Amino acid sequence: MSTIVQKFGGTSVGDTKRIEAVAERVARTQRAGNKVVVVVSAMSGETDRLLGLAKAIDPRITGRELDVLLSTGEQVTIALLCMALAKHGVPAVSYTGAQVRILTDSAFNKARIEAIDEHRVRADLDAGRVTVVAGFQGVDENGNITTLGRGGSDTTAVALAAALKADECQIYTDVDGVYTTDPRIVPEARRLDRITYEEMLEMASLGAKVLQIRSVEFASKYQVNLRVLSSFEEGTGTLITTEENIMEQALISGVTLNRDEAQITVAGVPDRPGIASGILGPVAAANVEVDMIVQNTGADGTTDFTFTVHRNDYDRTVEILEKVAPEMGAKGVRGDRKIVKISIVGVGMRSHAGIASRMFKALADDGINIRMISTSEIKISVVVDEKYSELGVRILHSEFGLEDAANLHNA
Amino acid sequence: MSTIVQKFGGTSVGDTKRIEAVAERVARTQRAGNKVVVVVSAMSGETDRLLGLAKAIDPRITGRELDVLLSTGEQVTIALLCMALAKHGVPAVSYTGAQVRILTDSAFNKARIEAIDEHRVRADLDAGRVTVVAGFQGVDENGNITTLGRGGSDTTAVALAAALKADECQIYTDVDGVYTTDPRIVPEARRLDRITYEEMLEMASLGAKVLQIRSVEFASKYQVNLRVLSSFEEGTGTLITTEENIMEQALISGVTLNRDEAQITVAGVPDRPGIASGILGPVAAANVEVDMIVQNTGADGTTDFTFTVHRNDYDRTVEILEKVAPEMGAKGVRGDRKIVKISIVGVGMRSHAGIASRMFKALADDGINIRMISTSEIKISVVVDEKYSELGVRILHSEFGLEDAANLHNA
Repeated sequence: MSTIVQKFGGTSVGDTKRIEAVAERVARTQRAGNKVVVVVSAMSGETDRLLGLAKAIDPRITGRELDVLLSTGEQVTIALLCMALAKHGVPAVSYTGAQVRILTDSAFNKARIEAIDEHRVRADLDAGRVTVVAGFQGVDENGNITTLGRGGSDTTAVALAAALKADECQIYTDVDGVYTTDPRIVPEARRLDRITYEEMLEMASLGAKVLQIRSVEFASKYQVNLRVLSSFEEGTGTLITTEENIMEQALISGVTLNRDEAQITVAGVPDRPGIASGILGPVAAANVEVDMIVQNTGADGTTDFTFTVHRNDYDRTVEILEKVAPEMGAKGVRGDRKIVKISIVGVGMRSHAGIASRMFKALADDGINIRMISTSEIKISVVVDEKYSELGVRILHSEFGLEDAANLHNA
Repeated sequence: MSTIVQKFGGTSVGDTKRIEAVAERVARTQRAGNKVVVVVSAMSGETDRLLGLAKAIDPRITGRELDVLLSTGEQVTIALLCMALAKHGVPAVSYTGAQVRILTDSAFNKARIEAIDEHRVRADLDAGRVTVVAGFQGVDENGNITTLGRGGSDTTAVALAAALKADECQIYTDVDGVYTTDPRIVPEARRLDRITYEEMLEMASLGAKVLQIRSVEFASKYQVNLRVLSSFEEGTGTLITTEENIMEQALISGVTLNRDEAQITVAGVPDRPGIASGILGPVAAANVEVDMIVQNTGADGTTDFTFTVHRNDYDRTVEILEKVAPEMGAKGVRGDRKIVKISIVGVGMRSHAGIASRMFKALADDGINIRMISTSEIKISVVVDEKYSELGVRILHSEFGLEDAANLHNA
């Protein structure tokens, strides 16, 4: 008898009809001989409605009471889903985060799970009951209600699966799995059957917004088999698991595109120790996150220092640097919003040389100029002009044969 | 330093503007040097919205999950009120019923409070914080969320006041106190400054729907000073307290009118033991509640047995009795929906004879025929034709001089 955790997001429980559809799916899973724990989000729109009430009182509201307010959203869903399960003849019992005792720290609005007491849930499962748990929320050691921040329901599901040593944690969403790239750009994009945690982390952080990053980290840490599936269609989705569970590993698993960044260069800085911290110190102090960083030393004893930030932080960052640059003896600050980052991701590249040069050549053959390069163990990213966004993704998807499931070696 | 419990119902917290008005009032009470505990209901309409969601899934929903659902209504209000208090510079902390630990039995949807752990609330009050508690809800010994049934927020407030030995429990409503009678019938009706628990219980159960009966019973049992006030106007309202706290007690405190009953007579029943149970047994078995009961023995060895039921139960009850009557040898069943019950209430009548005859004479002088009479220690009720409703109330209000506050002896 397997233990399965199933998580349904806000769209999947958006109204009572959809909640009944979720109940049917859960009932099928239980009748197939599984112990089922369900984790649900607030009904879509509900969190925003509650936030609207709070903001009518205080537009910059944060803190303890916001969590008391927002946690009601999932509490409504757990009750309604249990009612729907009962109607389908499935005995079910609901739990708030506090009732399970999902213990978190006291960082209201963005708490982190510290421990889960799985005993009550396990007793219900052993007694043949489906347990329905409110995602996104917990309780601190003083009994205060906390929330995990947006998207935290995924983390609740994975943490419960870890605590219960569940066989699988299934995340139902509005997509039917993880794709080799965005199908809106490459119609031949293919749903991946399996992918490693590391690859998923690189894909998620690079713009494939299927799962909350923290939940994948959690799944990786506790080796929870995580499956992404569609709430609305049948299918086996994509299993995110350990490398050992993937027999034939492709070189490259996917191509991602990130349109959210902008590039900034501090040009002609005298090349001496402390340049990086001199430039990035004031940027970090303004709470701007920096992604790619490249430094080139020129022939004349000066250096160009280039990095990327989120487009929303671009103006602010340029303003900061225009003050700092003269003090450092730099020639000037220039930047460009109209860039994108394209990346290829795959654990297979660890054991294969030549992937980078093959990527660069494919882009160059079509006249795409590479402006920055950054590499990690399982990822290579390049920054190119925004106008090459789709072309760049298509070239790389094709170059590594991602449209062909049989083509594991991306020949 | 006094401890005050203030309870605000759904209309008083109906939107965020009204919640801010409540916050101002609470802030004033605290700044006047009081320790303040606030009990709130769900925002008006919210409980019905939640019930609507539940009924879309199961029209006859009851049980555990309904309480999980409905309890979110007050949880939203406590959070919003704490936000509004914080904005007014008043430190405040919210508690759900489970967080206070308002321990109830496990009768979901209509639980009864068994104990209140007041320690956390008291610690907050001692630290200068206003505490805002969700009304209507509690938790059973197994950690399940329970609700007290409609109107239960009044009971929460009184129970908290008892546990904290508060100086006063103030119930804010949409009326500014308890009146000698319905001002829509008698424009001279006067707001009572003080009234005893017993009188209030008789007034409430007789149709003056200001307070939930259970909360008055609770206040009486624990000698909690209960004050009814308007949320929207200034004023001192009506204090409901022990007889000892009312120096000059009027003979009669009020006149009430109940339009919800119907009269049924089983005529010509052979007069022998077991008549009453023979008639009322089948009625009780059908869950029909009986109010007034009168039995008269006739000269011919038969008796007429008359009683009142709620108008909604009239048809059902007549149908039952038409089967039972022939078996008992009764001559027939007749009834009348078009009757009303008028009552006078006052602890003063305990020590004064002649109140009843004065009441009957006043009605007779104006040609009003009395069809039934029922008396208790502090109440006399008569049933009359519906057409005399307003006239009967006006005659009695005037007869006992209730329009004149100085006229304590109802001369």
